[in-house]
Amino acid sequence: MSATDAGILGQLFHEARTFSYWQPRPVPQALVEAAFELAFLGPTSANCEPLRLVLVRSHEAKERLLPCVSSGNYEKVRTAPVTAIVAYDLEFFERLPTLYPHADARAWFTTDPALAEETAFRNSSLQGAYFILALRAQGLDCGPMSGFDAAKVDAAFFPDGRWRTNFLLNIGYGERDRLHPRLPRLGFDEAARWE
Amino acid sequence: MSATDAGILGQLFHEARTFSYWQPRPVPQALVEAAFELAFLGPTSANCEPLRLVLVRSHEAKERLLPCVSSGNYEKVRTAPVTAIVAYDLEFFERLPTLYPHADARAWFTTDPALAEETAFRNSSLQGAYFILALRAQGLDCGPMSGFDAAKVDAAFFPDGRWRTNFLLNIGYGERDRLHPRLPRLGFDEAARWE
Repeated sequence: MSATDAGILGQLFHEARTFSYWQPRPVPQALVEAAFELAFLGPTSANCEPLRLVLVRSHEAKERLLPCVSSGNYEKVRTAPVTAIVAYDLEFFERLPTLYPHADARAWFTTDPALAEETAFRNSSLQGAYFILALRAQGLDCGPMSGFDAAKVDAAFFPDGRWRTNFLLNIGYGERDRLHPRLPRLGFDEAARWE
Repeated sequence: MSATDAGILGQLFHEARTFSYWQPRPVPQALVEAAFELAFLGPTSANCEPLRLVLVRSHEAKERLLPCVSSGNYEKVRTAPVTAIVAYDLEFFERLPTLYPHADARAWFTTDPALAEETAFRNSSLQGAYFILALRAQGLDCGPMSGFDAAKVDAAFFPDGRWRTNFLLNIGYGERDRLHPRLPRLGFDEAARWE
C-alpha cells in the first residue's frame, strides 16, 4: 500500500468522524449520486440491493422530517445540507428476476415474509455502511443517527408502507474544530477470536 | 482525488467481487487483525460496537462449521483459508459505560430487549460491511454468505446464547479467472430520490 493509499484510507476510516455541526457549504448533487453508484457495487445477499434512499434537502421536506427526530438530533438535522433517509424496500424481491437471473430467488422471499424483512434489514444496513464510506471517499462528511421515531418517518415519507426507514444520515462538510475526541474502541481480543 | 486514490477505490469497490473459489495461499493473521482495527473505527449508534467475530481456520473448527452451511456454500467454506462468523453480542450494552461514557446509554437497552436486539443487528451489519471493505483494503478478497443455518452455527459456536450469528464471510485470495460477469445494479433513479 502506497502513502497515497494510506491517505484515502485515512479519509475513509482514521480521520473520518461522526459530525454534529455543519459548514454552510452546499453539497454537490453529483457527489452524492457518485457515492450511490459506488455503494451499490458492494456485495448483498443474492445481489438483492434492498437499500432505498430519500435525500432530504428542500425546506418543505426538512419540515416534514424534523418533527420525527429526537430533541438531541433536531439541530443536527436542521442544519445539515442533506439528510438521507436510509430505508429498505420490503418488496425488494420483485427485482430479483433481473438482479439475480440464474435462480428463482424471488420465490425464496414471497413465501417467507419474515426472511424477506430480515434480509432487507441486514442488507440495507450493509449498503448503508458502503454508502457512508463512499460519501467519505467523495470528500463529504457523515452523521448517521438512530435517535428518531421510525414509525413517524415512515408515515411522513412512505405512506404506502412498502419502504421502511432503517436509519438517518446527515451529509455535508462538517465543522472539524467542534468535534470531541474520538471515543474508545474495543480491541481485537475483546471482540474477536481465532479458532 | 488522485489517480492512486482511484486505485484504492477500485480495490474497495470497482474491481472487488464476491469470490467462490480460493487460491491455496495462506491469509496472514496480521492483515485480518489490521482490518479489524480499521473496521472498528467506523461509526455505530452510541458507539455501541456490537460486532463479534470468530475467525475459523483450524481443521477442527471448520469441521464444526461445515454441517451448518447450505450445500451450495459447502465447498466455498471448505476451501476458504478463513471463514469469519460475523456475529453480534446481545449484551453489547454492558460495554457502554466505557464506550459511551457521557450518558447512561446502558439503561436505554437493559429495559428494552427488542431495541437491544435491533440495535445489535443493525450495527453489527454496518460493522460487517466496514470489515469487508477493510479486508479488501488489505488486499484480501471476500465472500459473504447468508446461505447457512444460523441456529446451528449458534449452537456449535455460541452455546451460552450471548453471541448470535449475523452472516458468514469467507476470506482469502480469490481465483479471479473463475468469476462470472458482475450482476446488474440498480440505478439512482430506481432506488433513490431527492426531496
